[in-house]
Amino acid sequence: MQSLTELARLVGAELDGDGGRLISGVATLKAAGPDDVGFFANRRYRSDLATTKAGAVVLMPEDRALFNGPCLLSDDPYLSFARLSAALNPEPAIEPQIHPSAMIHPSAQIAPTAHVGALVDVGAESIIGDAALISAGAIIGSGVEVGADCRVGSRAVLADRTHLGARCRIGEGAVLGSTGFGYANDHGRWVPVPQLGRVWLGDDVDVGANTTIDRGALEDTVLERGVKLDNQIQVAHGVVIGEDTAIAACVGISGSTHIGKRCTVAGGVGFVGHLEITDDVHITGMSLVMRSILEPGVFSGFPAESNNSWRKNIARFQKLDQLARKVGRLEQLMRDPKTEKNSGEQR
Amino acid sequence: MQSLTELARLVGAELDGDGGRLISGVATLKAAGPDDVGFFANRRYRSDLATTKAGAVVLMPEDRALFNGPCLLSDDPYLSFARLSAALNPEPAIEPQIHPSAMIHPSAQIAPTAHVGALVDVGAESIIGDAALISAGAIIGSGVEVGADCRVGSRAVLADRTHLGARCRIGEGAVLGSTGFGYANDHGRWVPVPQLGRVWLGDDVDVGANTTIDRGALEDTVLERGVKLDNQIQVAHGVVIGEDTAIAACVGISGSTHIGKRCTVAGGVGFVGHLEITDDVHITGMSLVMRSILEPGVFSGFPAESNNSWRKNIARFQKLDQLARKVGRLEQLMRDPKTEKNSGEQR
Amino acid sequence: MQSLTELARLVGAELDGDGGRLISGVATLKAAGPDDVGFFANRRYRSDLATTKAGAVVLMPEDRALFNGPCLLSDDPYLSFARLSAALNPEPAIEPQIHPSAMIHPSAQIAPTAHVGALVDVGAESIIGDAALISAGAIIGSGVEVGADCRVGSRAVLADRTHLGARCRIGEGAVLGSTGFGYANDHGRWVPVPQLGRVWLGDDVDVGANTTIDRGALEDTVLERGVKLDNQIQVAHGVVIGEDTAIAACVGISGSTHIGKRCTVAGGVGFVGHLEITDDVHITGMSLVMRSILEPGVFSGFPAESNNSWRKNIARFQKLDQLARKVGRLEQLMRDPKTEKNSGEQR
Repeated sequence: MQSLTELARLVGAELDGDGGRLISGVATLKAAGPDDVGFFANRRYRSDLATTKAGAVVLMPEDRALFNGPCLLSDDPYLSFARLSAALNPEPAIEPQIHPSAMIHPSAQIAPTAHVGALVDVGAESIIGDAALISAGAIIGSGVEVGADCRVGSRAVLADRTHLGARCRIGEGAVLGSTGFGYANDHGRWVPVPQLGRVWLGDDVDVGANTTIDRGALEDTVLERGVKLDNQIQVAHGVVIGEDTAIAACVGISGSTHIGKRCTVAGGVGFVGHLEITDDVHITGMSLVMRSILEPGVFSGFPAESNNSWRKNIARFQKLDQLARKVGRLEQLMRDPKTEKNSGEQR
Repeated sequence: MQSLTELARLVGAELDGDGGRLISGVATLKAAGPDDVGFFANRRYRSDLATTKAGAVVLMPEDRALFNGPCLLSDDPYLSFARLSAALNPEPAIEPQIHPSAMIHPSAQIAPTAHVGALVDVGAESIIGDAALISAGAIIGSGVEVGADCRVGSRAVLADRTHLGARCRIGEGAVLGSTGFGYANDHGRWVPVPQLGRVWLGDDVDVGANTTIDRGALEDTVLERGVKLDNQIQVAHGVVIGEDTAIAACVGISGSTHIGKRCTVAGGVGFVGHLEITDDVHITGMSLVMRSILEPGVFSGFPAESNNSWRKNIARFQKLDQLARKVGRLEQLMRDPKTEKNSGEQR
Repeated sequence: MQSLTELARLVGAELDGDGGRLISGVATLKAAGPDDVGFFANRRYRSDLATTKAGAVVLMPEDRALFNGPCLLSDDPYLSFARLSAALNPEPAIEPQIHPSAMIHPSAQIAPTAHVGALVDVGAESIIGDAALISAGAIIGSGVEVGADCRVGSRAVLADRTHLGARCRIGEGAVLGSTGFGYANDHGRWVPVPQLGRVWLGDDVDVGANTTIDRGALEDTVLERGVKLDNQIQVAHGVVIGEDTAIAACVGISGSTHIGKRCTVAGGVGFVGHLEITDDVHITGMSLVMRSILEPGVFSGFPAESNNSWRKNIARFQKLDQLARKVGRLEQLMRDPKTEKNSGEQR
């Protein structure tokens, strides 16, 4: 339980109302009780705000009048709420441990403050940093570097020579450093091309569950600081993803494509190989990116084009049958202007 | 080996022919031998029926004349065949065991009739129900509930507080309870939003291999009784899937989308977030569902629209180049009616 | 370090220049130093060739004049480069071992030259062939056959009765032999159909990380000799893939579809079930194949049609809004020919 005064200070929001109110958790407006803080960031939930039993609400100053109880005023209620929730729900501290069932190569270096769970395997000359957490069943290859405060999920695989910066979070079942899909064709048979690079992650990179990241063929596959990847994503060999880019689930990025900084990619998008995507590009769901994108903006479709253009075209597509009938009538009319009335009736 | 009489009784089909015929297995009409039962549910395989060596065939009463040998008559031959196959190929009984290499937290409760395989990890205060099977290499977190008769596949991960009803089947490598993809943006950097919910499965839910289900952000991710998920599916935080809905492989469902009961979703479909999909909705393969669907029916396309409309439009799309040429000719004709003949020839 | 003369002999290329030059590795033209060989196969990298510091370059005879130093002449520089890289970067030899933490069923047969890593589980009556590598954390079921020189990645699962030919490579987290998605519907509830087949791989088959291959329902799921699968692919029950076919990441193949020999399938493609795809078919990225393809060629789109046709139609689609406006103007013009000028201006 923390007081609203204290929470306001922690998240940098302005308190308006009873600062002594004690708060134990966060909740949706609908589910919140008197010990909870809710948040109001979307006008669509206005009716929930009217009826909420929350002890306090985070909202924008201009919405202050919509709630009677104590408020935390913030220009970005969702961000303040995220901070508030983190303050009220701190992650459990890492308890230093090497589980007796873990297999640690004698040449590996495990920081004394790190936690290595049950049934983990750590290979030769790998380094596990301060307060890093290696969850049960994870497999760490040889020559791997795991930075301080990383959390590697259960059954994740970090193949040989993978590098993780500080504070990375790797989801359950994710594979970093898998063999890139590289073959030369010899009279109809596929000859594997050795995949010599590695996977390199900067600080604060998150990788979702069952996501796969291939090591580079000749040069490394790189995820720069602050990149966030969701689940079930495939990142091929030699891809580079720029700082603070966020990519939703089920995206596939083909080999050697470079994506810029601060991009967002929605779920199910595909990128063909060898593209350059500049900074601040946003791709909507299930688009297929077939060409490099050299200026910022929103892109959509199959294949991807500017979102403005795609929206117009897809609206027309959804009436394409009507359009084709219309053209048929025009054609008939040109041939025989007297048919106009009939064709109109047959429509 | 069981007699046809006995099998007919077991599956509730009507026997027509020699009930003493002994049967050991099931097979396709093509591969079946005299000890096998085949089934005929699709007219496309009529020639296979004519030449099959099956000892007996399950078919509809109206097809009785198409096969000379003994038959099991059923209005739904595929369903009867499924039951027959289950009777002839019972799953091996669960042998109670805790493998010596399994790591069981002292506070976990394992039913005496359960089977815990090699190299399994079970966390604090987790409960494994009667006759449940935890296969080799599975990782069970803390506070997990696994209902009676569940089968958890090799290397599956059930993260902390996951709940499984009775008779659930979790595929190899599936991850339940992964961290939802939730971030607030702070001046260009992504701040993680704590993911406080869990994954809750009702009875008889199946989850395929390497499928991922995120735990909820504030509220649980829920799969109701009888939901069937195929492999490689991504279910984001806060999704709710209604009873008896079946979803094929490679589908992605974005956060907080609710899908109704008895829906079917074909492979590769994507749902954007915060949608409501009502009961009895059927989505065809690789569609992108961008809007809520409030009435039952079949939906298709990118983005999804009614299947009837999509089929008409996509047929027109596949002749779009011709349509555009036609419009070009009409335009030219309007400008200069004398060109008609030539344009026709240049076509 | 090997001499150019020796390398030329090893890869069957013609040496032109100082054969005594010693080479230690391969690199891109941009990154190569005097000890490296680079390769030039794409005119797009001509400027890199002009400035490279590579000790030698593999290129086509007609490009010989573009580089001053020693060259290896090859009609297929990428293939020669692949061989060269393999010669310079041999895979580490398999050290015979059964790790003490591995669980081997007494009835399993492990070749004395095989390597079984840490925390591996091998089930009853499974056979691990000569010089095969089973990496840490892999789970091998019962009755599994792993051919000579196979490499099974960390945390891969080979379910009961899976067969691998010689020299197969299975990626980390891949699942072979998962339960096929087969249900009959009984008054709204799904009844599982027993999945009795297995997964059968010929020689030289590669399977990527976190790819899933279901075992057959009645007949086996088969990947013939030389098939190469990338990461995150879903192969459903009863699929057959022909020799030397290569399939990129995130593809989904529905049940009982047969794909021919020497096909290539780009990323994100979907196949509906029960199709026949003949030999030498090439499908471009994210296409949806809804019908059988009975002649060789390139196919694209949603749904897939011939690539030629799709390219024309999609180009028209990207101007569909303009086309629809044009038709609107024509219509107006037919009704009232005097409006022509105005409508032109309003365009």
